[in-house]
Amino acid sequence: MCLALERSKTTSKHILTLKISTMSGVQDFNEYRQRMNDVILGQDNKVIKRFFSLDNQTYEDGALSEVTKELLGLVASMVLRCDDCIKYHLGRCHELGVTREQIYEASSVALVVGGSIFVPHMRRAAEFWEELEKG
Amino acid sequence: MCLALERSKTTSKHILTLKISTMSGVQDFNEYRQRMNDVILGQDNKVIKRFFSLDNQTYEDGALSEVTKELLGLVASMVLRCDDCIKYHLGRCHELGVTREQIYEASSVALVVGGSIFVPHMRRAAEFWEELEKG
Amino acid sequence: MCLALERSKTTSKHILTLKISTMSGVQDFNEYRQRMNDVILGQDNKVIKRFFSLDNQTYEDGALSEVTKELLGLVASMVLRCDDCIKYHLGRCHELGVTREQIYEASSVALVVGGSIFVPHMRRAAEFWEELEKG
Amino acid sequence: MCLALERSKTTSKHILTLKISTMSGVQDFNEYRQRMNDVILGQDNKVIKRFFSLDNQTYEDGALSEVTKELLGLVASMVLRCDDCIKYHLGRCHELGVTREQIYEASSVALVVGGSIFVPHMRRAAEFWEELEKG
Amino acid sequence: MCLALERSKTTSKHILTLKISTMSGVQDFNEYRQRMNDVILGQDNKVIKRFFSLDNQTYEDGALSEVTKELLGLVASMVLRCDDCIKYHLGRCHELGVTREQIYEASSVALVVGGSIFVPHMRRAAEFWEELEKG
Amino acid sequence: MCLALERSKTTSKHILTLKISTMSGVQDFNEYRQRMNDVILGQDNKVIKRFFSLDNQTYEDGALSEVTKELLGLVASMVLRCDDCIKYHLGRCHELGVTREQIYEASSVALVVGGSIFVPHMRRAAEFWEELEKG
Repeated sequence: MCLALERSKTTSKHILTLKISTMSGVQDFNEYRQRMNDVILGQDNKVIKRFFSLDNQTYEDGALSEVTKELLGLVASMVLRCDDCIKYHLGRCHELGVTREQIYEASSVALVVGGSIFVPHMRRAAEFWEELEKG
Repeated sequence: MCLALERSKTTSKHILTLKISTMSGVQDFNEYRQRMNDVILGQDNKVIKRFFSLDNQTYEDGALSEVTKELLGLVASMVLRCDDCIKYHLGRCHELGVTREQIYEASSVALVVGGSIFVPHMRRAAEFWEELEKG
Repeated sequence: MCLALERSKTTSKHILTLKISTMSGVQDFNEYRQRMNDVILGQDNKVIKRFFSLDNQTYEDGALSEVTKELLGLVASMVLRCDDCIKYHLGRCHELGVTREQIYEASSVALVVGGSIFVPHMRRAAEFWEELEKG
Repeated sequence: MCLALERSKTTSKHILTLKISTMSGVQDFNEYRQRMNDVILGQDNKVIKRFFSLDNQTYEDGALSEVTKELLGLVASMVLRCDDCIKYHLGRCHELGVTREQIYEASSVALVVGGSIFVPHMRRAAEFWEELEKG
Repeated sequence: MCLALERSKTTSKHILTLKISTMSGVQDFNEYRQRMNDVILGQDNKVIKRFFSLDNQTYEDGALSEVTKELLGLVASMVLRCDDCIKYHLGRCHELGVTREQIYEASSVALVVGGSIFVPHMRRAAEFWEELEKG
Repeated sequence: MCLALERSKTTSKHILTLKISTMSGVQDFNEYRQRMNDVILGQDNKVIKRFFSLDNQTYEDGALSEVTKELLGLVASMVLRCDDCIKYHLGRCHELGVTREQIYEASSVALVVGGSIFVPHMRRAAEFWEELEKG
């Protein structure tokens, strides 16, 4: 969301280069997520490690399909209003071929159950979905 | 949930009859829900009436099936920890033929997303589902 | 909420009296609230005592009227979905002469902001308001 | 919470015995909790089973003592306003020898962090603690 | 919130112009809000469209004044801790002539009901109000 | 979190200095917190002032140690998912000598009670703790 700004070493006082990161919001999100997961799992905390492993297992195919479970995770994240969780499940839904219409129908359930307090999160979800579709 | 206790008119002081309501938790829930909805919709409040109408429209078949939407409503209710909303969506899922395995898989998503704070609500959901299956 | 059932001392095995409490939901609520507040404030915990005192001060007339502040407390309690807090503020609003139409308009704001997850609490609020009006 | 009311088989129409359950709130709570846990764990859902096992592991002695962790679980339950979770951790704290003063100090943190919306839950917590101390 | 930084095309390596956006936080907020609302309402989702329309209707004059309803929406947003919703209602309150004293009294209700967890949001609300007053 | 970017007055068009703030996330957080607290306490609102004073009193040594209370405040902030509150209590815990292992054990309680919805906040907490340890 913020510009990642990095000043190159100036070899002369006449030349200054601004490298403005062109990394997208999707890449930013994934990169930060991976980096901090590494920090967290690098601790020797068994409860946290087991929780992360259990979290992965939760969305596997079973009596409900992986797609349905990702949609459940998405709507749960929406009504609990966690932008990062919403982004994660939007990313997974996109990989699994969920359509734009389906995402908006899922969002409509979250909106009616969760109320207008969800609207600002729906805006950020809509923005992230646009980026996912652009690839 | 509470015993509905009603003392019949005693025709003699030697006879006292206790009529303990055999109305199930499911019937209790539906009856109270209908009765208070009537009170609320009996007010002349247009915003509330429109919301109730919109709520019904939310779960209709579309890009996502009615079953999927009810499951989304169920998991949203679970992570927001509203026992009555959970019961309502369990009832709808039961009518639509959702299986016990599917209900528990949906519950497992709610449990991992929402944490152990959901467990007491999962107990009441499990109890209500047993009653729904008994019919 | 539950029936308060008390068996009188039977003076003969032929006579058994069931005294079913006719205490209303409003009285029940107020009585329990007072009794437990006494237990809590009977502890020597200064933070809790100061908080209770601050809570009372919060709703006093100022730049906003007491009525407006009670309505703010009511809607805050509604979107946070605390039945007892809702009942308390409904009671205060009733004492201050807030009308039924105003209560339902305040509820409509809570409903749109907070979503359908508020509906079961709105049912219980509607029921309590009926009792308050019956006096 | 409700009275458990059971009519004995009347051996004559002149004698009717009301057996009013003397099971305390603590016993009620524990019995229901165990019964529904059995229903839930009786399903063949691996995610739920692993979560329950992980939940038990969470409060074991480590860098923080079991007592500290139970207090953390208690305050987490308080600010998330889950009466049953509060009761469970109050029970565990009582078993581990946490004092009344410590429980009220933990409650005061929950009250200041979580606000007056916690007060009704503090009332029920206070009531449950009284029962725990009566044994 | 972040600096919008834009490098102009450098016509020579000796000249580099930094155009730092002077758009205020208020303008930023309104512009993003409008742009994403357009994306969302550009979808053909009837439930979402009806919800947005209902949302507008909610705050119209009725048994309660528009000002009172905006204050109710503000405090609801505060205790639910949604910065963007708070900003929106602060903006509306400012347009309707609500005073600084009234905003802080409404905030004090949110603080006592919602607890210290609201404090960081109160900081951002205070900052946004300063900007609104600067115009 | 964002870069604080400030362009020095250019004394010649050949020289442009970019002063990129090297203020850490910890300093940023503390500075903003202090500045906005000053704005808020600069209002003449007695309820807010008393609340801030009460908040300070809450974490003083008593039947529970200051460290335990800060850990309670930390976990409460974690399950309520308030990044700024988490940062504040992490800072206090760091000052009081709480170890990394203890912080992660407290986080594990928050994770199991609050669920995977807490994970993104745990990432930001982990990042802030790294900064605190770097000093």
